[in-house]
Amino acid sequence: MPQFRLTIEYDGTNYSGWQLQSGQDSIQARLEAALAQLFGVPLRVYGAGRTDAGVHALGQVATFRTLRPFDCAALRNALNALLPHDIAVRETAEASDEFDPRRAARSRVYEYHILNRPTRSALAYRHAWLVREPLDLDAMSRAAAQFLGEGDFAAMRSAGSAEKTTIRRVYASEWRRAGGDRLIYRVEATAFLRHMVRTMVALMVIVGQRRLPPEAVATILASRDRARAPGSAPACGLFLVEVRY
Amino acid sequence: MPQFRLTIEYDGTNYSGWQLQSGQDSIQARLEAALAQLFGVPLRVYGAGRTDAGVHALGQVATFRTLRPFDCAALRNALNALLPHDIAVRETAEASDEFDPRRAARSRVYEYHILNRPTRSALAYRHAWLVREPLDLDAMSRAAAQFLGEGDFAAMRSAGSAEKTTIRRVYASEWRRAGGDRLIYRVEATAFLRHMVRTMVALMVIVGQRRLPPEAVATILASRDRARAPGSAPACGLFLVEVRY
Repeated sequence: MPQFRLTIEYDGTNYSGWQLQSGQDSIQARLEAALAQLFGVPLRVYGAGRTDAGVHALGQVATFRTLRPFDCAALRNALNALLPHDIAVRETAEASDEFDPRRAARSRVYEYHILNRPTRSALAYRHAWLVREPLDLDAMSRAAAQFLGEGDFAAMRSAGSAEKTTIRRVYASEWRRAGGDRLIYRVEATAFLRHMVRTMVALMVIVGQRRLPPEAVATILASRDRARAPGSAPACGLFLVEVRY
Repeated sequence: MPQFRLTIEYDGTNYSGWQLQSGQDSIQARLEAALAQLFGVPLRVYGAGRTDAGVHALGQVATFRTLRPFDCAALRNALNALLPHDIAVRETAEASDEFDPRRAARSRVYEYHILNRPTRSALAYRHAWLVREPLDLDAMSRAAAQFLGEGDFAAMRSAGSAEKTTIRRVYASEWRRAGGDRLIYRVEATAFLRHMVRTMVALMVIVGQRRLPPEAVATILASRDRARAPGSAPACGLFLVEVRY
């Protein structure tokens, strides 16, 4: 049965996350509702990965199957007309029958946005974490470099998550400054454990506040002990930027 | 009576504009409500300029008078605790008794954001105008240069506006590309007529679509005829960036 592949942008503020959950409003539920309206039958959507409540995406990837042929551009435009303002389809393409958006992914790219200034922002509060004390970006960059390569991220996963392996390979991990008071962390890895990016960011912010030296990151990682890492940074700053195949 | 000066950021999406209007929700009304709560008496707020419904600000300036002394940092924090999420006080300072935020302003800086891509954005729709057809940024830059200097902007004002003079001096007028599909117009002038920036942007977009040559801007300006210019660009893309003194 032919498959379509969708690249999706969303503002996660008003959703319980990507994943369908009964009684909750999710991105997947909204996509399936739009597809059902368009095709007249219920259709299941498969995503490349779950994003948590409040997390945003610029390039989530998802697939669905249908026997009905449909022009890709027309499909994109029809879905964008049916979806709410805070969910948009950026691209549509035909996918091969065996394409599995989760298993085929080589890596995922996330960004985390921090607004580093003393006062809250009226324009950016939905899309960045406000950290009021000045952060030492050099120290945070040195901390970020310690996540690179293959490692065991057991200390960075959310308590209660039950992945088979906690080994992940991190291809890129770096901070940059944008527009004066905005700090952006970009990380690419094979895959991520639950709350992994947000826990890494919370730890690097502690380094940026000079409450821990950058080298503490390696020590905490090596401990494999979730209790040694801080809580996770807020969801509003996190963006799934791209899924790479 | 001592005066305080506030620098204010706001997301204009949910407001009828800066100016107090009976039966409408305005930025000024929200500020006055927060000040009344804080000081226990009604206080009037004076702004450097009005922004229309849906227009945003990064640096609107306003003043109010009170006999009660108040520490500036405490005032800022108290107001930010009382104001809604989409209005924030960035700075507070004591102002001299004769300071008039509107008359004392030497110039105002506005930016207009266009998202130039075929599909709508789920993350940026509140803060940019979506223009789907590719725009010629070089042509738009040539058009922008024709607004520089002292000129009569009668053709760029909103119909029905009744300013004494339509002569304004434009100090800066230029486009830049940011992040691939975002085009940002920055303009600085002594002051602006009603809908002036949005009419200028709408005209430059027509140039960017190659429906008019860049030189048409000078001709339309010289005509002083509002009917020769297009309608105005949507409010959501416009930001009052700074008021200069």
